[in-house]
Amino acid sequence: MEMREKCKGMLLVLSGPSGVGKGTLAKRLLQEDGSFAFSVSVTTRAPRPGERDGVDYFFVTEEEFQRMVRAGELLEYAAVHTAHYGTPRAAVEERIRQGQNVLLDIDVQGGLQVMRCMPDCVSVFILPPSYTALVRRLAGRGTETREAIEKRMRNAPGEIACMPSYEYTVINDDLETAWRTLHGIVEAEKRAVSRCLPEMGDTVEEALSLLDE
Amino acid sequence: MEMREKCKGMLLVLSGPSGVGKGTLAKRLLQEDGSFAFSVSVTTRAPRPGERDGVDYFFVTEEEFQRMVRAGELLEYAAVHTAHYGTPRAAVEERIRQGQNVLLDIDVQGGLQVMRCMPDCVSVFILPPSYTALVRRLAGRGTETREAIEKRMRNAPGEIACMPSYEYTVINDDLETAWRTLHGIVEAEKRAVSRCLPEMGDTVEEALSLLDE
Repeated sequence: MEMREKCKGMLLVLSGPSGVGKGTLAKRLLQEDGSFAFSVSVTTRAPRPGERDGVDYFFVTEEEFQRMVRAGELLEYAAVHTAHYGTPRAAVEERIRQGQNVLLDIDVQGGLQVMRCMPDCVSVFILPPSYTALVRRLAGRGTETREAIEKRMRNAPGEIACMPSYEYTVINDDLETAWRTLHGIVEAEKRAVSRCLPEMGDTVEEALSLLDE
Repeated sequence: MEMREKCKGMLLVLSGPSGVGKGTLAKRLLQEDGSFAFSVSVTTRAPRPGERDGVDYFFVTEEEFQRMVRAGELLEYAAVHTAHYGTPRAAVEERIRQGQNVLLDIDVQGGLQVMRCMPDCVSVFILPPSYTALVRRLAGRGTETREAIEKRMRNAPGEIACMPSYEYTVINDDLETAWRTLHGIVEAEKRAVSRCLPEMGDTVEEALSLLDE
């Protein structure tokens, strides 16, 4: 256990068009891999009953939010309806320093912002097997208005066009296969030298001390 | 099947100190993953009975070898006893273009040369759990002279010190665990956007054509 704690954590950015199933994959990763935590967002909207500051969201005023934007304290931010939402850089960086992994399930615009701020993040784009399959899946959800579905369909091509900016891509044709692939990427990235060099320290130090003799 | 063939292959560089077990891991990868081929080396030594040119080695004269070095036709090369050995760049690049993966089981000096020539290769360094464990393993092989073992032991610290130049590191404490980790890295790298963009082409093209409408 002590070995893992010495490792730097990873920031995993998971994006893809609406309806591709990235929420399901994100939930499964959080359930099955205890090393991952979900990033707590900042928002200007009022807390709903039961929501706790610092747990569900960091609740801030519009003025405080704008100050955070200007000070570069947000990895990404966006407006949803009349409220602002953002990802606080300090909280993510602190977790990573402590060796925790952080998952961001985020739209493409947010994902691209995060990659610019933190170029050593691991970015995965979930693709549908085809655009037609995505349209079918969105329509089949049955939980959204026709208007909302049409908006998502209009956005999807522009989102998919951003895929080449990501590091990895996973096709979600069969959910089980997609999960195994995502899990494999996460396990491989845990072995990235850039992150686990401290963990390797003992063997390398031992080797270097022998060189000096 | 056709999807895979459109993908660019990867060049996997596998290094680590002598005795760490990278040969065993390399053999298993070639056995279990049909997408990998071993790179055929160039050598100036004479063919042994049964060895075929272009299959076991490319057999060349010393003059031809030196010409290849000067022309930059080798990804790496080294002298072993009185002969020269090298990895021909053209053969590796041709396989990768065709979508095949190429495995190079190579010492650290060679690995560093290859990384300079082909920076988009995937590099994995196999580490022993400790230097002491490596020494024990080398001595326990029972196939080498005491002199050879001592030489390998002297080289190991310098080799391990090069680990930070590699992209991934795998600790070979338990062979089965090390194999699963290496296999996971390979599977993840098959999903790297930089290599599989052509495979994704249909979905992205379809999305882009919808943007134009």
